[in-house]
Amino acid sequence: MLKLQDTLSGKKVEFEPLKPGFVGMYVCGPTVYSPAHIGNCRTFVSFDVIYRTLLYLGNKVRYVRNITDVGHLLDDGEDRMSKGARLQQLEPMEVAQEHTVGFHDMMRIFNNLPPSIEPRATGHIIEQIEMVEQIIEAGLAYESNGSVYFDVPAYLEKGEGYGSLSGRKVDDLMAESRDLKAQGDKRHPSDFAIWMKAGPDHIMRWNSPWSVGFPGWHLECSAMSRKYLGEEFDIHGGGNDLKFPHHENEIAQNQASCGHGGARYWLHTNMLLLNGKKMSKSDGNHITTEQLISGESEHVSKGYSPMAIRFFMLMAHYGSPLDMSDDALAAAEKGYQRLMEAVKRSETLEGTGSEGAPLDLEIHKALDEARAHMLDDFNTPRAIASLFEVASLINSIADGHRKASDLSAAGFAEARTKLLALVHDVLGLQASTGGDADDSSERINGLMELVIDLRAQSRADRNWAMSDQIRDQLAALDIELKDGKEGTTFSLK
Amino acid sequence: MLKLQDTLSGKKVEFEPLKPGFVGMYVCGPTVYSPAHIGNCRTFVSFDVIYRTLLYLGNKVRYVRNITDVGHLLDDGEDRMSKGARLQQLEPMEVAQEHTVGFHDMMRIFNNLPPSIEPRATGHIIEQIEMVEQIIEAGLAYESNGSVYFDVPAYLEKGEGYGSLSGRKVDDLMAESRDLKAQGDKRHPSDFAIWMKAGPDHIMRWNSPWSVGFPGWHLECSAMSRKYLGEEFDIHGGGNDLKFPHHENEIAQNQASCGHGGARYWLHTNMLLLNGKKMSKSDGNHITTEQLISGESEHVSKGYSPMAIRFFMLMAHYGSPLDMSDDALAAAEKGYQRLMEAVKRSETLEGTGSEGAPLDLEIHKALDEARAHMLDDFNTPRAIASLFEVASLINSIADGHRKASDLSAAGFAEARTKLLALVHDVLGLQASTGGDADDSSERINGLMELVIDLRAQSRADRNWAMSDQIRDQLAALDIELKDGKEGTTFSLK
Repeated sequence: MLKLQDTLSGKKVEFEPLKPGFVGMYVCGPTVYSPAHIGNCRTFVSFDVIYRTLLYLGNKVRYVRNITDVGHLLDDGEDRMSKGARLQQLEPMEVAQEHTVGFHDMMRIFNNLPPSIEPRATGHIIEQIEMVEQIIEAGLAYESNGSVYFDVPAYLEKGEGYGSLSGRKVDDLMAESRDLKAQGDKRHPSDFAIWMKAGPDHIMRWNSPWSVGFPGWHLECSAMSRKYLGEEFDIHGGGNDLKFPHHENEIAQNQASCGHGGARYWLHTNMLLLNGKKMSKSDGNHITTEQLISGESEHVSKGYSPMAIRFFMLMAHYGSPLDMSDDALAAAEKGYQRLMEAVKRSETLEGTGSEGAPLDLEIHKALDEARAHMLDDFNTPRAIASLFEVASLINSIADGHRKASDLSAAGFAEARTKLLALVHDVLGLQASTGGDADDSSERINGLMELVIDLRAQSRADRNWAMSDQIRDQLAALDIELKDGKEGTTFSLK
Repeated sequence: MLKLQDTLSGKKVEFEPLKPGFVGMYVCGPTVYSPAHIGNCRTFVSFDVIYRTLLYLGNKVRYVRNITDVGHLLDDGEDRMSKGARLQQLEPMEVAQEHTVGFHDMMRIFNNLPPSIEPRATGHIIEQIEMVEQIIEAGLAYESNGSVYFDVPAYLEKGEGYGSLSGRKVDDLMAESRDLKAQGDKRHPSDFAIWMKAGPDHIMRWNSPWSVGFPGWHLECSAMSRKYLGEEFDIHGGGNDLKFPHHENEIAQNQASCGHGGARYWLHTNMLLLNGKKMSKSDGNHITTEQLISGESEHVSKGYSPMAIRFFMLMAHYGSPLDMSDDALAAAEKGYQRLMEAVKRSETLEGTGSEGAPLDLEIHKALDEARAHMLDDFNTPRAIASLFEVASLINSIADGHRKASDLSAAGFAEARTKLLALVHDVLGLQASTGGDADDSSERINGLMELVIDLRAQSRADRNWAMSDQIRDQLAALDIELKDGKEGTTFSLK
């Protein structure tokens, strides 16, 4: 049984999909007006592991993650996309394209699976207009000077639970609101726009029954989740910072337009900190994904591979804050390498014992615990701890500290299958970014083993011409040999 | 001055953008209901080179390439996307997402730059509805049973040039049409749908003034090119097969809705043949992009790298048919390697002569010719021929057949800059898809040369133990040796 920490009920609950074997999941995607930052990346890695776990459990999952390319307003009331475009003197869709391509690149290098559907806000204006019409019909929104606002007081009067997701009390919300003046065309300060009339200079604009304008940001996720997952669906996810007002407003819009609040379970990821503090460009406590990979930042001593960074992110539970530091990244990198080394060794290791060999039980116990931790609200740090136990067992056999006869052939083969599924399929960890490169390095290692052996033989045979030839030709290939106590090793320059 | 072969005027003309220094270009993108095939790939490689050439000439280019995810009808009247979705029991947007991701992957491995804007048909329903309304208002479309048709006879009566792009005579078109019965709700057989009422089982549907339905395929490109490039813009491109009816109908729609035909220049790419014949799945004369790369097809003796395939495509002018065969691909691969080898050597080569050294003139002449060929309707085969002359000069110096003192330092440095711009920026050729993979394959080749030599020596020395060991260890690495007349070669399995 899969359990998850549901923000809406505030409890860890058993997950029961509406239709057994099928899961609908909606996750708020990026606003593509600037490069996605590493904090976003943590959110999408977290939901990638959740998606992968749901698939691993045999579900058919429809995973919808949107692209926000209109409507995400700044505090000054300007649309993020329009502002980004104006600053760069580009058409907003050029800005959206640039950052959508960049976002996809980032998702790929971190080995996140593409979602099943990736709808764009601008691609669903009709659906959003339809939803506005339904909310007006229900008496829960009003038009004012070409814009349409969600009527929060009217919604509260109906006894709907506005504030239940973020834990804000209705009275507090109303009290907070009383201190504020109603701004512009709003009747009440807590009302929010679901359709905005476009000013004369606003570039992004569409016809609607109320004005030539654009949808409010909160509306797109309501409209697109309903379109692709239905009025009621299983899971809605996003970053912690979206709980209020974004997700609270989504629930209100869904409830107001069709009597269902949308998702039955809500999952929220926590923040990524840098050196114990919130990341912020203005005070310099900031690092980009590129800098993290290249190492070109004062905050890291060197670059980290995307897989090591992914592993680092999985070392904390998605619901906890994660503090990034050079030390923590370096430790994660070591852990990642240790785990992948054991995975690699498992591929050639064979159990030689008979059924019920002593280590069979031990290795399967650790693997089953790793699985159980994933089913306990996707607890990746605990699952990784169990996988480290498996890695230790494999290494102890490969290093000769324990005997291969302590494992049965069938028992170990089954364990290997479980291990690969957890590491590759569930956690999404790869040995490297490209299978080809992998094959090549295996071949180079194999060829070098042969060449080093031939050199040793030619020396033993006092065939100095041959051993010199080998050394010279390797040097021409930028391969250096080192003769040490434990034999000859090589390094690539 | 850039010249291009304009399909609309049927002439090679000088290109004059509407606004000097700015170019708007629209290219018909893929219908994402199935994997993009290698013929599509040729079209997009061709327009990538055209886009790159326009950028190279210092233009600010807005390159719009759409994604068709609704409205592309089959002969039986079913929408391709809906049919794809029905066959796979998926939501159409899941089908669109799968093949959009696959298409982007293909564009990336062939090193095509992303377009500036990549609009989707479903993302522009409002704009399409607006255009239908304008065409109805102009009296050039009519509603019939919830669908809306473009009225070709009425359009012809107005004296507009329907048929001018594809060279079809109006009388012939009308004569052809007379033999056909008007089908369904159409008044005239040559009329075409711009809005379709959705049948009860049709999944993709939107509200409109006429019916819950979906737009006709031809409409999206008119609406999206107008939205992002304006009523009049510079270049429209696409595959030859789209000339009629798709592009002809686009012109008619643009003309009818706003009095401008859209693009001022039309460029069309020609077909990709396989072994002299049209590719066709049903008669087996067919190869997928994956097969071409992996070599797993009866039509190729081995796999070709995406860059070798790109180079092969550039060996013909975009406007000519290109016949793909194993021999032609193998020849292109050699040419590609030869050119890239020279590019690599140019990076370390230095001219040691003084200003006006004898080869300066020669190398710059060939480079300037390459540039001139690109400006002559993007003539890639001729540009490559000139670049081969440059490669020969570089190789002759690197090989010591000519002297470095025949080149001046400044003259060669300038030549190198020109060469790199033409090869990397304009033709989009890279040394490989990843620097690492390239190093690896060079190392494997170098090591194999050494190992083959050591084996020959061990055989000459009658050291059978060693030669057997070499053969066995290579076999374990999936490397096969073949002894032939011209020495021993190897292949990787």
